[in-house]
Amino acid sequence: MQLSPFLGELVGTMILILLGDGVVANVVLKKTKGESSGWIVITTGWAFAVTLGIFVAKVFGSIDAHLNPAVTVAFAVATGDFSKMASYIPAQLIGAFLGAVLVWLQYLPHWAATPDPGAKLAVFSTDPAIRHPTGNLISETIGTIALIIGIAGISAKALGTIAIGLGPYLVGVLVWSIGLSLGGTTGYAINPARDLGPRIAHAILPIPGKGSSDWGYAWVPIVGPIIGAVLGGLLIRWYAL
Amino acid sequence: MQLSPFLGELVGTMILILLGDGVVANVVLKKTKGESSGWIVITTGWAFAVTLGIFVAKVFGSIDAHLNPAVTVAFAVATGDFSKMASYIPAQLIGAFLGAVLVWLQYLPHWAATPDPGAKLAVFSTDPAIRHPTGNLISETIGTIALIIGIAGISAKALGTIAIGLGPYLVGVLVWSIGLSLGGTTGYAINPARDLGPRIAHAILPIPGKGSSDWGYAWVPIVGPIIGAVLGGLLIRWYAL
Amino acid sequence: MQLSPFLGELVGTMILILLGDGVVANVVLKKTKGESSGWIVITTGWAFAVTLGIFVAKVFGSIDAHLNPAVTVAFAVATGDFSKMASYIPAQLIGAFLGAVLVWLQYLPHWAATPDPGAKLAVFSTDPAIRHPTGNLISETIGTIALIIGIAGISAKALGTIAIGLGPYLVGVLVWSIGLSLGGTTGYAINPARDLGPRIAHAILPIPGKGSSDWGYAWVPIVGPIIGAVLGGLLIRWYAL
Amino acid sequence: MQLSPFLGELVGTMILILLGDGVVANVVLKKTKGESSGWIVITTGWAFAVTLGIFVAKVFGSIDAHLNPAVTVAFAVATGDFSKMASYIPAQLIGAFLGAVLVWLQYLPHWAATPDPGAKLAVFSTDPAIRHPTGNLISETIGTIALIIGIAGISAKALGTIAIGLGPYLVGVLVWSIGLSLGGTTGYAINPARDLGPRIAHAILPIPGKGSSDWGYAWVPIVGPIIGAVLGGLLIRWYAL
Repeated sequence: MQLSPFLGELVGTMILILLGDGVVANVVLKKTKGESSGWIVITTGWAFAVTLGIFVAKVFGSIDAHLNPAVTVAFAVATGDFSKMASYIPAQLIGAFLGAVLVWLQYLPHWAATPDPGAKLAVFSTDPAIRHPTGNLISETIGTIALIIGIAGISAKALGTIAIGLGPYLVGVLVWSIGLSLGGTTGYAINPARDLGPRIAHAILPIPGKGSSDWGYAWVPIVGPIIGAVLGGLLIRWYAL
Repeated sequence: MQLSPFLGELVGTMILILLGDGVVANVVLKKTKGESSGWIVITTGWAFAVTLGIFVAKVFGSIDAHLNPAVTVAFAVATGDFSKMASYIPAQLIGAFLGAVLVWLQYLPHWAATPDPGAKLAVFSTDPAIRHPTGNLISETIGTIALIIGIAGISAKALGTIAIGLGPYLVGVLVWSIGLSLGGTTGYAINPARDLGPRIAHAILPIPGKGSSDWGYAWVPIVGPIIGAVLGGLLIRWYAL
Repeated sequence: MQLSPFLGELVGTMILILLGDGVVANVVLKKTKGESSGWIVITTGWAFAVTLGIFVAKVFGSIDAHLNPAVTVAFAVATGDFSKMASYIPAQLIGAFLGAVLVWLQYLPHWAATPDPGAKLAVFSTDPAIRHPTGNLISETIGTIALIIGIAGISAKALGTIAIGLGPYLVGVLVWSIGLSLGGTTGYAINPARDLGPRIAHAILPIPGKGSSDWGYAWVPIVGPIIGAVLGGLLIRWYAL
Repeated sequence: MQLSPFLGELVGTMILILLGDGVVANVVLKKTKGESSGWIVITTGWAFAVTLGIFVAKVFGSIDAHLNPAVTVAFAVATGDFSKMASYIPAQLIGAFLGAVLVWLQYLPHWAATPDPGAKLAVFSTDPAIRHPTGNLISETIGTIALIIGIAGISAKALGTIAIGLGPYLVGVLVWSIGLSLGGTTGYAINPARDLGPRIAHAILPIPGKGSSDWGYAWVPIVGPIIGAVLGGLLIRWYAL
């Protein structure tokens, strides 16, 4: 397979989910080294998952390094160029699915050691702290708008950040911030591929003692981020951020 | 609304408070993902709230990105140019109020789940660990002087920091430091808008089971930071930092 | 001794292990200041151990600053130039051994204060959270592939990261990420010298109340990282990362 | 007072101790916001205290920004130029004393709220986890050598780090690393002024319910860092780091 934006989005999102779902596995599964090490570990792990996912996506051919259909939609809305969606979004979904398979493999001895089926699903997909569809949808929407505006701020050419190669670190800091501050409600999917790809993996993989894949909630971390992406994209378009 | 310093200060401060008060909500409200995750989470969250607030303020039109009346006052004292105060400070107050409204919305299902009215107020405004007006005023004053001198150090043109776009990250580190080291007493408002705007939001919003907005303490996080701003501004003026 | 790549790899790996095994000592030995301070402390400590090890290796003569036979093997596979292996790998092993001796010295009063022999071995070498040779080997392999691909991403000349001197910090972030997300199973050796050198030190040093050096497990953190290094090196070769 | 290296060292060290001893106050005094928040908070706080101390020292006139007699001694040994010692070291001691006074002021209501005299002294000066003069001296010596070699690595002109203004952040990371990994034994003074200046402040200030200033231990965090500084300075001299 040649280097290409498709491959870059796929491999980058795979790394994003390997490292992102991996840190959740470390904290919520039983008998791990990081068992119950808390929210600071989860949010730091996801932050650097984003940073590394972006670096890897770039070397595998995606200079954009979106890794997230919401980001792809937002920049389509902002620029009026919707052509990237058809290749980026499938690549992100496949990458997210494969990343979740790698997490399953990485924590192989720990699935049987963890009795709670909810903890096992939590490694793969987000679930709300309090089930409240309206509130959960608002949370995912606000979180995604913050993501889009934050990326716009960090990427602004005038600030010279991207040029020096620290953009990926700063986008990691952005997701760290969203996790710490806005993630307390729904676990900050803010990325439809991040939630759907691993949820499919959860449904398919032979995980000992797994429970429901909770498809009843699956629409929230898809619809919320897309609403947020459209609103964030319009803000970028209107303000030429 | 056109891009302008007014809009930049308003949107930047809104993001600052969304992410800053948001992390407090995550830690002190009940049934959140980050419940009781402690001071490292709160201080890290506020640090990155500052970093992101600055990035966003810049792209929405405020190259200064003060986000804080104390910073605006300090630079007025330092330069002798008081003209920015009339537009920046109202923008910061409005932004802080709106950010607090967003936090209320973001954590919508968690207000009723949290019995303690004091915890609910703590999401919005600061309160002293030990109520001691003189000591609290000294704390806010010293914290703000550290903020102003720190910004002067980070912004020094000779060091080339701002030029490469990492200034916002380093100012976040500065506020991280102040939170970790000086925030143990009054919760480091060090910013009158950060405290007053959300306190007004707390008074107005329909929060289930809320208690007093504690207006008796509200003057401390306004007066302390202004004293600190004037002293810090004079230091910058005298030493041409 | 003159500055040379050999000396740089030796001193850099010594610093890596002094700071890396040092943080484990601080967390798992008894009566330390950081006793039981958890996974965030261990992973942060190892991250900065890597960053500092790289800086030190560079000034002592190794511009490559591999500090890890897996990295040396991966770049040999990637480039087809196997000539560095003969000097780098012994230097890394000697440095890792000496670093472990320094940790023993640094925590001198704490060995007798710690009753558990397993905790004492854990300062030196990795051990699996659940003993499961296949799963453990997979974990070390995946972790090492992530390390190699991550380094390739961070080092990509097009991104300009290394040029500005922040490469060592970002490689530290990479190892932070691997520790947080993938280290929950085997303690992320991902470096044969990091495990073998200190294990030899454990076997030799006069540590009060020490137990077995667990040689039965010692092959996993050697073989896993080498498999990962070969696979990662092939990826770099095929994709010219 | 004019900008000068003397003023820069004094004000920079004052900020270092305000923020460094401040974080210890936040963690060990009673009824603070950060009470018992642990080693990650202490080490992060000290790291950024160093970063900010350096930034402030530079703008107040000390381009060197040593803030530490051990660093001043090491560079004197390395370069053969001992002329800076006579002005830098007194400035560092005075600054450290004044910083400790500010911490006393910042946490004014919390001294009476804290019954344990040992906790109160711990805010000002270091104390060993296990009292063992030889072991403690070795710890302070190794920690200081790591500091000196680390600074040499970070400052190396060839790496371009200092040039872009991120040197102060990376030196903060260095001290973060030393604290996490080597600080578990003696609390990592690695700086005679950091320990002696605040110890004098503890002896003089009217702190309710204070106990002994533990002068019997005071020589260790002076002698250890000086031995480390001389050894580190010789390494720099021999290897022209």
